[in-house]
Amino acid sequence: MPPSKQRARSAQDKELRSKEFLQAARELALERGVREVTLTAVTARVGLHPSALRRYYESREELLLELAEEGWSSWQAGLVSGLGDAHAVSADEAAGIISGSLEALPLFCDLLTHAVLSLEGAVRLERARRYKTAAFAAYDAMTNAMVATISGLDREGAQTVLTTAMSTAAYLFQVSRPTATLKQLYATEPRWAHDALRFREQLTALLTTVILGAQQQTRELATDPRP
Amino acid sequence: MPPSKQRARSAQDKELRSKEFLQAARELALERGVREVTLTAVTARVGLHPSALRRYYESREELLLELAEEGWSSWQAGLVSGLGDAHAVSADEAAGIISGSLEALPLFCDLLTHAVLSLEGAVRLERARRYKTAAFAAYDAMTNAMVATISGLDREGAQTVLTTAMSTAAYLFQVSRPTATLKQLYATEPRWAHDALRFREQLTALLTTVILGAQQQTRELATDPRP
Repeated sequence: MPPSKQRARSAQDKELRSKEFLQAARELALERGVREVTLTAVTARVGLHPSALRRYYESREELLLELAEEGWSSWQAGLVSGLGDAHAVSADEAAGIISGSLEALPLFCDLLTHAVLSLEGAVRLERARRYKTAAFAAYDAMTNAMVATISGLDREGAQTVLTTAMSTAAYLFQVSRPTATLKQLYATEPRWAHDALRFREQLTALLTTVILGAQQQTRELATDPRP
Repeated sequence: MPPSKQRARSAQDKELRSKEFLQAARELALERGVREVTLTAVTARVGLHPSALRRYYESREELLLELAEEGWSSWQAGLVSGLGDAHAVSADEAAGIISGSLEALPLFCDLLTHAVLSLEGAVRLERARRYKTAAFAAYDAMTNAMVATISGLDREGAQTVLTTAMSTAAYLFQVSRPTATLKQLYATEPRWAHDALRFREQLTALLTTVILGAQQQTRELATDPRP
């Protein structure tokens, strides 16, 4: 589409325009991976000149960080509703719910790596503060939901599980998205394919183990309180 | 230094030149982070024109993947010697040894993210195969050393611990290297700084939990064998 749209004038138009950019970035990131999203491609998809985007986002990093911030809120909604008002959820059941909440958000899983690698450090301080505030609020809400629903898990244990979930999801997601060359290689080496292409299954197994460990630490602390 | 060196002619000279490039890339990556390493900067440090490097490495990705491959071998050496010929090493002691072996290799921790994000998928198939072969050999050697030395850990448990170690180390390492803006932000928010700047401590705590969980799964499997 040729750059032909008019500049957005009203506050409402600006809000709509800003959402168009986010939607274009979202689509491109899902199609090609976050790494390949450029401002040129985003504005081309919206049908505008790259300079138009600069009135809304200072940089590619700021635009993508906005998507990461949305991702935290979606993860929180998905995980909290997945746990629901259940009680005494077992380790493997909880692991399945957590890994399912992440598998449902491939863009967020991709963004987790980019947020810490480049996005959050590349924007202005106040924008970074807004991102961190939103991410920690989601993290705390998820911690509370886990403590309330998962069997024998204290606050520290829930935080350990959550930190493991996000860091291993970030890593395993990238592993699970091989390039054409790597796919060709995996076709000749079944073990490598097996290790690379089971995102949900690997994440569930790993989180089951860490929840079991956290439950044990919670039990030990309860029966042998430190002075 | 101006580009003034002669082209390497003998096999021995070529070997030396190749090592010079690797060493320059290593230094730059440690100074600035892997993300900021460019072929121009690498050749400038060696004192050559960028075209000289292309006779040794096809791309920035191939050069950096060579460093990642070295990293696997260094991690294996460090972890295996850290575990030594001990027996029945406890969960928290083992966690400390594993996190220490990763903390000693900041360049490798940085490369872990880049290897899965961009490096291993960007080189020719045969180069990727060589990298994967080396990485899996190191992974297997470390698994064996862990099963032999850590108390009550089976092969599957050791693999879970190792996969968690590398993926959380990759993530937490990036978190622990804030930009100037993020440092400024952390100075105003002690909790964010606390969560970001304790690489070794966080990794040890998290690995202790996952080892405890893996030990429990090993015990359960031993006392309740599946049909």
